[in-house]
Amino acid sequence: MNTNLFVVLMAGGVGTRFWPYSRNAKPKQFLDVVGTGKTLLQSTYDRFLPICPPENIFVVTHEEHRMLTKEQLPSLSESQILAEPMRKNTAPCILYACHKISKINPQAVVVVSPTDHLILNESDFQQTILKSAEQAKNQDKLITLGIKPSRPETGYGYIQYIENKSTLKKVKTFTEKPELALANKFLESGDFVWNAGIFIWGVQAIHHAFAKYLPEMTEIFDEAAPSISTDDEKQAIQAAYSQTKNISIDYAIMEKADNVYVWLSQFAWSDLGSWGSLYEYSAKDSNNNVIGVDALTYETRNSIIKGDANKLVVTQGLNGYLVGAFGNVVIVCEKDKEDLFRKFVNDLKSKPNSSDYL
Amino acid sequence: MNTNLFVVLMAGGVGTRFWPYSRNAKPKQFLDVVGTGKTLLQSTYDRFLPICPPENIFVVTHEEHRMLTKEQLPSLSESQILAEPMRKNTAPCILYACHKISKINPQAVVVVSPTDHLILNESDFQQTILKSAEQAKNQDKLITLGIKPSRPETGYGYIQYIENKSTLKKVKTFTEKPELALANKFLESGDFVWNAGIFIWGVQAIHHAFAKYLPEMTEIFDEAAPSISTDDEKQAIQAAYSQTKNISIDYAIMEKADNVYVWLSQFAWSDLGSWGSLYEYSAKDSNNNVIGVDALTYETRNSIIKGDANKLVVTQGLNGYLVGAFGNVVIVCEKDKEDLFRKFVNDLKSKPNSSDYL
Repeated sequence: MNTNLFVVLMAGGVGTRFWPYSRNAKPKQFLDVVGTGKTLLQSTYDRFLPICPPENIFVVTHEEHRMLTKEQLPSLSESQILAEPMRKNTAPCILYACHKISKINPQAVVVVSPTDHLILNESDFQQTILKSAEQAKNQDKLITLGIKPSRPETGYGYIQYIENKSTLKKVKTFTEKPELALANKFLESGDFVWNAGIFIWGVQAIHHAFAKYLPEMTEIFDEAAPSISTDDEKQAIQAAYSQTKNISIDYAIMEKADNVYVWLSQFAWSDLGSWGSLYEYSAKDSNNNVIGVDALTYETRNSIIKGDANKLVVTQGLNGYLVGAFGNVVIVCEKDKEDLFRKFVNDLKSKPNSSDYL
Repeated sequence: MNTNLFVVLMAGGVGTRFWPYSRNAKPKQFLDVVGTGKTLLQSTYDRFLPICPPENIFVVTHEEHRMLTKEQLPSLSESQILAEPMRKNTAPCILYACHKISKINPQAVVVVSPTDHLILNESDFQQTILKSAEQAKNQDKLITLGIKPSRPETGYGYIQYIENKSTLKKVKTFTEKPELALANKFLESGDFVWNAGIFIWGVQAIHHAFAKYLPEMTEIFDEAAPSISTDDEKQAIQAAYSQTKNISIDYAIMEKADNVYVWLSQFAWSDLGSWGSLYEYSAKDSNNNVIGVDALTYETRNSIIKGDANKLVVTQGLNGYLVGAFGNVVIVCEKDKEDLFRKFVNDLKSKPNSSDYL
């Protein structure tokens, strides 16, 4: 096991695309979305255990979900859960975690991973991490994992690379959520992969990149750094977060830096960003329904029926629908109308009693 | 006010056609089905108050719903709630109540009414009751209320009468739930009305009919009669119910007796026997939806969206559906597939944990 390998699990998301399944109090990463018996956070953590010392795994989450994280990952020590006082997107989150790690091991190679994605073929994934970490060690390289696209998905980010003989390729361009026509061109061209949002870098390399592309943020966190892993950590981090800007690592660094590489990966991956993708990756009954609740279904096909334990859902005459019964909310809608979910939630926010349902 | 007028409200039904809205613990008569702010039982009771002394109104219900009846009709005294120890259909229920009443007033004219129907035009209804009660007084006549049919409804019972000059007509035949072709013939013929299941008779007339058509049941209840309205009532009624047969007043007496009359009534009536009839009689929004819950609806038309207070239902892309969110059950089905409801409930009964949901 590589004792220089560290993992940062980002568990700060609030995603509304799975509302009302995911709620403010329990975002997607804390749910057993695909019905495996483990939450997405637990699955992500377990995926790294065979290749990384458990004490090298850190979870960054919002303060309000610290206890939930501790409950779901009881083997984590207090110091392995980094609580963010406010949400400032991924750049401050990563910088905080990298300061934490560089104080422990300045030679660390750090894997940064979302915790709300689905990954199949776990041993392929572990080999990918180990091999790409080998490439990042003592190098000034920022590596991101690329997934060979299987369809012209318009909800993903694409990475164009410069062809070479290696699995590790220099990145040419990043494109976020292309139109369908463009996504089709990307597939045809053959030099585009999906951006899985999983990064591998030496802790020194990422500090260099922050210093270059986010000098203000770097200064703010340099001030907080001496307090990290001391009794003053919480106060220092509160001060840093209140000053720093809200920006993603992709936009601030990955899309600008000239030392960004993509590792062409083999494992199956989904960002589980929609009910449609959940449907795709879940086991189906003989009528092509995904059933995740006590249910009686009649003339029901190609649908997702999901809800809390100890609820019964009866459906009849539905084709291609989502029926969700979560807490005090029931939703019935065409499962492919993903773009509407944002509207549902926004409309709900304008209702007087909306907080009961969000 | 006619002090000889007594009312028996039958509130013992368990109906499954509104499941999961109506449940074993709370059948339809105890629900505010049409959203008026009163339950059907309360509406039925209030409808008789202007024409009958309140102490003359009795409710017969199953023992398990005695407290619920008391809660919904707090002005009833203990002795006005007749608790049945078991369900034996309407004949024993009516005989029990008529014994109770004949001990109080042997000259009583008794109105027997279901409590889970909808009646509009209340003053027409009250006039109908008063006028038909006048016809029943001191007569050996069994009167039932007939409603002029507006459509070839196949879920109702029909009464064919012998034409005469009066509003009160002698009954020729009873027909339960005819096929559509037959129902159409009934409408064309002009001498058929719907059977509203509301009966008016002198208490002596109904005792005569029981003696003639149900001699065994009469004997059993004659034995219990001296204990009625004493401390031994509960025990005596328990004994009578355990011995007597399970049979309806329609089948045992009304369809056999030769002194049965129908009063042609004018008020609007529905047995609210299905979600379709509930839809018909409820207020609708601009998309022809009946909304009885906190809801957000999109591309939703001709549907019923109903549920508990403090629940939110979001629908999209539905036309002609029922979406119900009641307790721990959610149902989504085409609202006109009424025949399926019995199947849903029967299928549910074969599930191991079905009692949680019934």
